[in-house]
Amino acid sequence: MTDFFKGISPVKFEGPQSANPLAYRFYNKDEMVMGKRMEDHIRPAVAYWHTFAWEGGDPFGGRTFDRPWFGDSMDHARLKADVAFELFDLLDIPFFCFHDRDIAPEGASLAESNRNVRAIAEIFARKMETSRTRLLWGTANLFSNRRYMSGAATNPDPDVFVYAAAQVKNVLEITKDLGGSNYVLWGGREGYETLLNTKIGQEMDQMARFIDLVINHAKKIGFDGQILIEPKPQEPSKHQYDFDVSTVYGFLKKYGFENEVKCNIEVGHAFLANHSFEHELAVAASLGILGSVDANRNDLQSGWDTDQFPNSVPETTLAFYQILKNGGLGKGGFNFDAKVRRQSLDPADLLHGHVGGLDVLARSLKAAAALIEDGTYDKAVDARYAGWQTPEGQAILKGERSLDDLAARVEKENLNPQPHSGQQEYLENLINRFV
Amino acid sequence: MTDFFKGISPVKFEGPQSANPLAYRFYNKDEMVMGKRMEDHIRPAVAYWHTFAWEGGDPFGGRTFDRPWFGDSMDHARLKADVAFELFDLLDIPFFCFHDRDIAPEGASLAESNRNVRAIAEIFARKMETSRTRLLWGTANLFSNRRYMSGAATNPDPDVFVYAAAQVKNVLEITKDLGGSNYVLWGGREGYETLLNTKIGQEMDQMARFIDLVINHAKKIGFDGQILIEPKPQEPSKHQYDFDVSTVYGFLKKYGFENEVKCNIEVGHAFLANHSFEHELAVAASLGILGSVDANRNDLQSGWDTDQFPNSVPETTLAFYQILKNGGLGKGGFNFDAKVRRQSLDPADLLHGHVGGLDVLARSLKAAAALIEDGTYDKAVDARYAGWQTPEGQAILKGERSLDDLAARVEKENLNPQPHSGQQEYLENLINRFV
Amino acid sequence: MTDFFKGISPVKFEGPQSANPLAYRFYNKDEMVMGKRMEDHIRPAVAYWHTFAWEGGDPFGGRTFDRPWFGDSMDHARLKADVAFELFDLLDIPFFCFHDRDIAPEGASLAESNRNVRAIAEIFARKMETSRTRLLWGTANLFSNRRYMSGAATNPDPDVFVYAAAQVKNVLEITKDLGGSNYVLWGGREGYETLLNTKIGQEMDQMARFIDLVINHAKKIGFDGQILIEPKPQEPSKHQYDFDVSTVYGFLKKYGFENEVKCNIEVGHAFLANHSFEHELAVAASLGILGSVDANRNDLQSGWDTDQFPNSVPETTLAFYQILKNGGLGKGGFNFDAKVRRQSLDPADLLHGHVGGLDVLARSLKAAAALIEDGTYDKAVDARYAGWQTPEGQAILKGERSLDDLAARVEKENLNPQPHSGQQEYLENLINRFV
Amino acid sequence: MTDFFKGISPVKFEGPQSANPLAYRFYNKDEMVMGKRMEDHIRPAVAYWHTFAWEGGDPFGGRTFDRPWFGDSMDHARLKADVAFELFDLLDIPFFCFHDRDIAPEGASLAESNRNVRAIAEIFARKMETSRTRLLWGTANLFSNRRYMSGAATNPDPDVFVYAAAQVKNVLEITKDLGGSNYVLWGGREGYETLLNTKIGQEMDQMARFIDLVINHAKKIGFDGQILIEPKPQEPSKHQYDFDVSTVYGFLKKYGFENEVKCNIEVGHAFLANHSFEHELAVAASLGILGSVDANRNDLQSGWDTDQFPNSVPETTLAFYQILKNGGLGKGGFNFDAKVRRQSLDPADLLHGHVGGLDVLARSLKAAAALIEDGTYDKAVDARYAGWQTPEGQAILKGERSLDDLAARVEKENLNPQPHSGQQEYLENLINRFV
Repeated sequence: MTDFFKGISPVKFEGPQSANPLAYRFYNKDEMVMGKRMEDHIRPAVAYWHTFAWEGGDPFGGRTFDRPWFGDSMDHARLKADVAFELFDLLDIPFFCFHDRDIAPEGASLAESNRNVRAIAEIFARKMETSRTRLLWGTANLFSNRRYMSGAATNPDPDVFVYAAAQVKNVLEITKDLGGSNYVLWGGREGYETLLNTKIGQEMDQMARFIDLVINHAKKIGFDGQILIEPKPQEPSKHQYDFDVSTVYGFLKKYGFENEVKCNIEVGHAFLANHSFEHELAVAASLGILGSVDANRNDLQSGWDTDQFPNSVPETTLAFYQILKNGGLGKGGFNFDAKVRRQSLDPADLLHGHVGGLDVLARSLKAAAALIEDGTYDKAVDARYAGWQTPEGQAILKGERSLDDLAARVEKENLNPQPHSGQQEYLENLINRFV
Repeated sequence: MTDFFKGISPVKFEGPQSANPLAYRFYNKDEMVMGKRMEDHIRPAVAYWHTFAWEGGDPFGGRTFDRPWFGDSMDHARLKADVAFELFDLLDIPFFCFHDRDIAPEGASLAESNRNVRAIAEIFARKMETSRTRLLWGTANLFSNRRYMSGAATNPDPDVFVYAAAQVKNVLEITKDLGGSNYVLWGGREGYETLLNTKIGQEMDQMARFIDLVINHAKKIGFDGQILIEPKPQEPSKHQYDFDVSTVYGFLKKYGFENEVKCNIEVGHAFLANHSFEHELAVAASLGILGSVDANRNDLQSGWDTDQFPNSVPETTLAFYQILKNGGLGKGGFNFDAKVRRQSLDPADLLHGHVGGLDVLARSLKAAAALIEDGTYDKAVDARYAGWQTPEGQAILKGERSLDDLAARVEKENLNPQPHSGQQEYLENLINRFV
Repeated sequence: MTDFFKGISPVKFEGPQSANPLAYRFYNKDEMVMGKRMEDHIRPAVAYWHTFAWEGGDPFGGRTFDRPWFGDSMDHARLKADVAFELFDLLDIPFFCFHDRDIAPEGASLAESNRNVRAIAEIFARKMETSRTRLLWGTANLFSNRRYMSGAATNPDPDVFVYAAAQVKNVLEITKDLGGSNYVLWGGREGYETLLNTKIGQEMDQMARFIDLVINHAKKIGFDGQILIEPKPQEPSKHQYDFDVSTVYGFLKKYGFENEVKCNIEVGHAFLANHSFEHELAVAASLGILGSVDANRNDLQSGWDTDQFPNSVPETTLAFYQILKNGGLGKGGFNFDAKVRRQSLDPADLLHGHVGGLDVLARSLKAAAALIEDGTYDKAVDARYAGWQTPEGQAILKGERSLDDLAARVEKENLNPQPHSGQQEYLENLINRFV
Repeated sequence: MTDFFKGISPVKFEGPQSANPLAYRFYNKDEMVMGKRMEDHIRPAVAYWHTFAWEGGDPFGGRTFDRPWFGDSMDHARLKADVAFELFDLLDIPFFCFHDRDIAPEGASLAESNRNVRAIAEIFARKMETSRTRLLWGTANLFSNRRYMSGAATNPDPDVFVYAAAQVKNVLEITKDLGGSNYVLWGGREGYETLLNTKIGQEMDQMARFIDLVINHAKKIGFDGQILIEPKPQEPSKHQYDFDVSTVYGFLKKYGFENEVKCNIEVGHAFLANHSFEHELAVAASLGILGSVDANRNDLQSGWDTDQFPNSVPETTLAFYQILKNGGLGKGGFNFDAKVRRQSLDPADLLHGHVGGLDVLARSLKAAAALIEDGTYDKAVDARYAGWQTPEGQAILKGERSLDDLAARVEKENLNPQPHSGQQEYLENLINRFV
């Protein structure tokens, strides 16, 4: 045991009345919700990078955190792994996620870098023998190193594509070996700083080729997890190709990947794309590509990705509603893609962030389940579309009517449909009853 | 002749030195640019609605314009048509565009409404015998009437779908009869005010069914123009399904319409979707769905669609570059989807808007052509991607390498690609040489 | 009694467990909160314009509502007044607010318009003899009529200034006569569409002159309510001079009005100015100009003012915290500057909006009060600033130290202050305990 | 001479026809514009930090630039100073600006840090004996070090205030010694990450105390340059107190500094505050606090500060119009607060950025001057306000009319003012004639 979290006790469920800031008030992992354990609904995960690798810098200031594992050696990386599993145990959390560069330092060559990642992964494997925390997903960092400044898969230099491919191969294999449920691709550099030096069509073809390589390799090695693309519209690039769920869908359809790849949807990325989180979930569900979730929130007044812990039960309830109606997240889960603020210097702050976030998820899950079990809301929405269930509605939908047919009917029946209340305020109040 | 534009002479090309505010300084329709008449590149159009139907209202104030044709009678509509062609002639502009509700009043039934539209269209046809102005595109207004408040194709009530279909049939046929080059679908109500009362999947299926009806009817009647969807992310709805070009592409691919339908891209809609106009053009070109353009601009500080006339030559030059590289707009053109400000009360203001806009387009076209003819810029961009033209680059792109192959090469060659300058400032300065 | 709300019973408090959509679950007017009746904390008001005058139009569509009082006659205005007080009674709400043009039609001259307003005000006075609803504030509509398109006080034409002044005089006097607690000035046209035709300095002087006239007239007639400016950054104008609370404060200070005028702060206007609502409240409180509140919310994805009813308890709790720490709103209150959506056609929707909004306010008030009464939160914030309470901290603040003194102390003490955790996540979780 | 810019020749004016990317096409320093040398209008400056200290990092990636002076020793700092003056000479630019931390490394104590800064400043002084480049302004970096994470002047810990004060004393004195024309205060940490842990009133008092110390010390040491606050609404903080020019003005008025302090206005900061640059200039000019300018531009689609070089002549022309109408910038100037993109790795890129920026400024200055000399535009705007020059207009403005007087006049004259065209399109076209 390191002494990083010295004096902090394991976080327990104490119920809504507890005033203990390091207790769960709502997150009660074994509590049954709609016939399933709460934990199996949420499948929450700690993000290795935000929690252990981020140093507290921002565009105008450097490191604020003072962690004994900050440094470039494998000793530092091993200490970091020790502290990580101590936090997992303190939180009693079932999953974590990582990028290769979060867990091990870059070496003098890719071969050495890959060996470093593998070495730490083996430490993870050993720790997982005694800890119950499992791997939700792994991913390769294809954005921090300057070699990727102009893209990884979409780089104008094919050698960078090749290098990135080799890096992904390593992490994909390690993800499989660690029993990871998903492999995620986030394309922070797959986009452009200026359209002036960019050939979009060429770069899209490169990106498709890259995804194809990953899909084929996953099959070859027998990885049976989900392959996920994480949409984000911008930042760090001015424009990123995986702008939002709809854009990713168009890409998948164009290149024929729509049955192989799903989306990992992040709250803050949805917001940056000028969507609500529940919108992106609903769109992905309707397109069959809802895979997993990055739980966080963005500051409403900041124009960049703030990756804060979720703290609004009303908003997260709407997300859980979409997820529950989709039949859950399957192999996906809720990764806390969130970091404590750069002024939150204390080890305890890392726990405050996760405890608050887990309680918000738990409370929201229960609210969404209650809403569904009550049934009033779903009935109101179904009633609104009832006309499309009639024989004539179905005939139109099935393509059994032509424009001429429909025009003739308007004329014959002197059709003049009247609008009906959309009942937005009623529905909003109804939702508020459950949060 | 009405006397609405009394005292205003036809607008002529007088050259860059002219200080006459109602002369063209750059728009010289017969001037040859890259081997084609300027007018044939731009194919500019007056928008009937903004120019003749908009009353100057905004969310906090009513009509400011005082036009003799404001009113609900067919007499008013006929006067409006007279003035419209007077403006076309004064501007010597080759095209116009219209919505059915701009040109003729709604009747007591759809049948009467359609007859009204047909009657005015016949007046147009007669006027086109003496005027040289032609129809760039027609469209149906499926958003103003309260019956469409919850959508047209995507309405929860199938009767509204049917009504809309019958309305579109009429305008599509009229567009064909008037020799229109395109038929446009803009879905301002195809979206939602609140996700709370909305079934996205259901509504997408309805929208696809509607498009299919239109495509089939166009074929049936022998309409050989382009069918265009006009992307817009929001306004009037909180969310619109045709969010941007990439989203529309995904929709077209999902339902198999990608060879039947293209996009009509509007500057201000691109901006509302957090894209640059040239980005949307480049994306559409790369996907093969660049159809036509709505030329305008948005105020940079306003969060809604302001539909102002274009006035920035540097920005519009980047748009023309994309269009020229795409081989032009074909049957498309530049519709001025722009209105004079609500404080621009005078008849002359209608001319100032169009004259300024045309000059900006002309100047930008010439700048983009000069940039291309110079060649320095294109060479710089091509050089950036040269690596992908090598045999190994091509082999990767063609799928002749696996992830294992690429990883083996990194190891064998100890590959460590170095980044190269993206030259953004150099390229920006280079562009500025031509504007 | 009209039959507009036929079948709708008065709304009663039924407690949190009620599933009756037209009952209050939290709004219990006589419940004591921190020693004061709930109603006396909130002082909620119905906005006449949104509730009775708005027709459901938006920039792309006309009237959707079908109200028997829509029309330009005084008979219509009287019917509207009848229905208004019926709603006030159904809601059992203590206040309302109005613009002159909401309550009575514009006449052929200002004299006639003013008489119309006065006539309806007399009807209000009579109704107030039997209803318990009082006037929170009145205001003049200086933005809808085309005469104000270029500003009222800031119009380039002094005759418009004069006309506006005469209009305000009438409403100010009526507000006094009806016992109104406040008079509000909202400057939707006091700004510009384009800086190109605008002299900012000249227009600011005009605006100051106008305010001065109002202050003096209020004193002259013995109006003892608050005079309030309502900040809004834009819409309808591209830029409005009353951008936000800080901007209004600078204006008041420049012209010496800071003791005469306070702010009426609207949630959605704060959001449009890229502030949180609680920020604007805190700033106004710190400057001594917090007067009253327009309760609503904006859609997070829409770039314009959506004026929806408040529905987020967590957000509104933060607002009540600021208000309670400020000692309450005094003569101010919570005006529901909110309208049901244009698709909410039914009379009952008007009640759903207000009932849901009142419940959110009540629940938020109670949460903020509990947070304050618990005391943990305030103690944590006070502790953060404790250093400034030391003698040396106070000496610095009082100006008893020079730059030389401070530099000497750094050198002498080799001062090297270390940062402390800002505890954001802990504080967020703490707040969440009470909402 | 270092060999960093090896092979790059001094940049000369070659005229608009030049295709040499490292020649000035418009910037011709001695050319007379409205009776003054072009250089004396613009007073352009290189920013030390962006040009020499920025490493090319962004929130998702580290250093991309490879500069021989990157490192923490004084030797590195001296090499950086050598290269800096080599660039100044190559560009033949009359000014530069710096933060203390850009030019010299932080030491083990503030005393050592201050000595480091002083030592490099002495090198600057020696170089200025042979170079013609002078100091436009100096400033202290009160934001990068973690000690400032919660503010400098507004820190909850008074010791941080004291430390910051001592740091500013050093830079202020050095700025004076180097003949700097201005001293700038930018408060990137004077704001908050969360209102939850913040006392705004307390922090404003601290900030005022700090400014007061600076003003007094400047007087004491005989610094006769301008003291400038640089507004920015956010980034790095969620909210910064110096939000925009109007907010800064309110602060200055509250504490009585309005005659002692002016504003340094940055293009990108105006944009982040949802203003146009010319708006902020016009507001500052109208309030008498226009001091200096940070010339750059923001990407229109990015939500953060991108600090790109200016490249739009139409936009910058509007800025120069405001500046020329204000009588110029006096002791202020145009600091290029701009950095080449992180992908612009080559030494030549540093020149491309500045050469392009200077040419845009020069071209814009000439366009604005031509617009003013033509006179048509100013006449049109003056005509719009002519009514206020009449005796009655003046009487109103001077306070010689009461609300009763004005109301009586409306009644007596049956006043009904009619609106006049705002001529926006005409004015926009007119401006376009000169750019």
